[in-house]
Amino acid sequence: MHNSSSGKSEKFAIRGVDGRARTGVFTTFHGDFPTPAFMPVGTQGTVKGVTPRDLKELGAQIILSNTYHLHIRPGDELIRDLGGLHRFCGWDGPILTDSGGYQVFSLPTLRKVEESGVTFRSHLDGAELRFTPERVVQIQENLGVDIMMMLDECLPYPATESATADSLAMTNRWGARAIAARRNPRCALFGIVQGGMYPHLRQRAVEELCALPFDGFALGGLSVGEPPELLHEMVEFSAPLLPPEKIHYLMGVGTPSDIVRAVGNGIDLFDCVIPTRSARFGRVFTRDGHINIKNAQFRKNPNPIEIGCECYTCQHFSLAYLSHLIHAKEVLAIHLATFHNLFFYQRLMREIREAIAEQRFSAYANEVLRREANSGAVADVDPRSVDPLS
Amino acid sequence: MHNSSSGKSEKFAIRGVDGRARTGVFTTFHGDFPTPAFMPVGTQGTVKGVTPRDLKELGAQIILSNTYHLHIRPGDELIRDLGGLHRFCGWDGPILTDSGGYQVFSLPTLRKVEESGVTFRSHLDGAELRFTPERVVQIQENLGVDIMMMLDECLPYPATESATADSLAMTNRWGARAIAARRNPRCALFGIVQGGMYPHLRQRAVEELCALPFDGFALGGLSVGEPPELLHEMVEFSAPLLPPEKIHYLMGVGTPSDIVRAVGNGIDLFDCVIPTRSARFGRVFTRDGHINIKNAQFRKNPNPIEIGCECYTCQHFSLAYLSHLIHAKEVLAIHLATFHNLFFYQRLMREIREAIAEQRFSAYANEVLRREANSGAVADVDPRSVDPLS
Repeated sequence: MHNSSSGKSEKFAIRGVDGRARTGVFTTFHGDFPTPAFMPVGTQGTVKGVTPRDLKELGAQIILSNTYHLHIRPGDELIRDLGGLHRFCGWDGPILTDSGGYQVFSLPTLRKVEESGVTFRSHLDGAELRFTPERVVQIQENLGVDIMMMLDECLPYPATESATADSLAMTNRWGARAIAARRNPRCALFGIVQGGMYPHLRQRAVEELCALPFDGFALGGLSVGEPPELLHEMVEFSAPLLPPEKIHYLMGVGTPSDIVRAVGNGIDLFDCVIPTRSARFGRVFTRDGHINIKNAQFRKNPNPIEIGCECYTCQHFSLAYLSHLIHAKEVLAIHLATFHNLFFYQRLMREIREAIAEQRFSAYANEVLRREANSGAVADVDPRSVDPLS
Repeated sequence: MHNSSSGKSEKFAIRGVDGRARTGVFTTFHGDFPTPAFMPVGTQGTVKGVTPRDLKELGAQIILSNTYHLHIRPGDELIRDLGGLHRFCGWDGPILTDSGGYQVFSLPTLRKVEESGVTFRSHLDGAELRFTPERVVQIQENLGVDIMMMLDECLPYPATESATADSLAMTNRWGARAIAARRNPRCALFGIVQGGMYPHLRQRAVEELCALPFDGFALGGLSVGEPPELLHEMVEFSAPLLPPEKIHYLMGVGTPSDIVRAVGNGIDLFDCVIPTRSARFGRVFTRDGHINIKNAQFRKNPNPIEIGCECYTCQHFSLAYLSHLIHAKEVLAIHLATFHNLFFYQRLMREIREAIAEQRFSAYANEVLRREANSGAVADVDPRSVDPLS
């Protein structure tokens, strides 16, 4: 059983539990953030289409950026010399960076995977580059981020049991090397549990990896093209195996319904490109599923995206105006749709936290799932299967 | 001599004069704005890259939008039915719309010019459309703007004396028809003085057109490709001919030095795409001329665009970060550069107003001209000679 008194980590304090769902606070050098939390994705040191002050206003408390992209351009040493990523990108709250492993394994740039590390080519200029577990920690310490992710091998779906077993074993050895490579105690370090779609391999990965003194644990190797139900099966099986006193991060997930289901299995932290990328294609979220503002039916609609929504976009602009902007290819369409979608996600997380604290999470989650199901709208953007640059 | 007691117009009150330069207040249904004023250009009902609240914050007090574009998409009747352009685009301050004449004559869509009006094709779908002086007033009243511009014929440069004489005569007859077509007293109507580069024709245009009860007068047919010195010669000759008690608007101008020179000849109102369009190409303004943030020299520069600038961009972001954003093709680059450039222009106008009020305009103008000349940087974007859609 989890409860707040069981927390052993200095960085994470659980404040309430409701079934398997937990609400808590994670402490970083750049401030605390409440969980469950959703991190807007700022791959290249900017969440596309919004400013840092927009992010504050819409309720974001931690953002994600990308080790691979920032290492290649503008360079982690340049960012270090300019005072670190926070100063560089004008965001003074917590930042988590992924390890770059996902990009190395998903972009068509991979050259060689060895026990020692990964050799790949820059997607920008073809230059040969190398990531090792140690180098990836060093890059993230150069960036000065609050939460670093270890280098892991992220297998595609499907993968054989044998390949998955070998891969997770190497990932776990890389985890030990990442721990040994840490220099800056201000930067938390999270481990990544692999094991593909094989429960017994997930169990093995947890047993080995979670013996290491990481500050948090992620479920990796999911949302890589498997059927959604398989994703949720793996989360349901794996999340309860994670050390209860540590924060649990499900990488690259997901839709609002994915998030409430994962929270119900004990996940505390999420990132996903869905709200930002969808917005750029005109897809905006409502409590009853998403709509596409390109649709002709909105051309004369005087209402906001969602009646009652308190975001800047919904308080000031009609669907008719957003429709006009997107048809006229005006950049303001991206800003206003992104602002709304990120506000929607942050409101979802706030409501989830409140529901857990008030011991009514199950009813809240069921309501989210019911409304999304009734709408007939399912997210048509797979979060990690399309252009990894976005 | 001009002075505040000579003002006969109800809408415009001159508060101070310094040589030929004037400072005053123009009153509209959506509020007053101080002059000299610069209007950011929002062709399609949005100033590209910034929100209405950004415009308020950076000091804009009136914006310009475009009759031609809004008539074609989304349609002035749709905007009227949704409560007018202010509600549609979320800007509650004054709006001026140009007449569409400039677009009709500059886009490759013109079919026929007759005394009765202009026949042209939509640049979007090729549909045949027609503007008459009456129809253009009606469209702008549908939009519900604060200041309407009469339909005029805008000749290209160069044009013969004979063609210019015929054209201005027709424009003046169109002016009388525009006056007769007005229905909504909330919408001010400005006349446009043509006459090309011929001083005696400018004089003739003023004599005829300024006898009509317009609420303000614009100098049109300038900044159409003529040498900059010729533009300033024509302004120097023409502006003093305009009724001193009315507001004087120089359409489509210009660089900071163009603006201070024109103010020195009695111009009160400006619009130009330079600050917004330049920003999208990475060109940003400083008191010592503009720089291009794409330039390799800024890649590691920890300073803001302009040290001491109080805009959001300069208060939070380095040239190195802006350089990164523009090289990474991140949309935030457009926002931050546009915000700075528009802030720069609004600061220029505020300083101009203060200098006039304090009887030191000549010294201020000379300082602006000296610093821009010393920088070696001249605006490399001709405001009205490139893509009219931007």
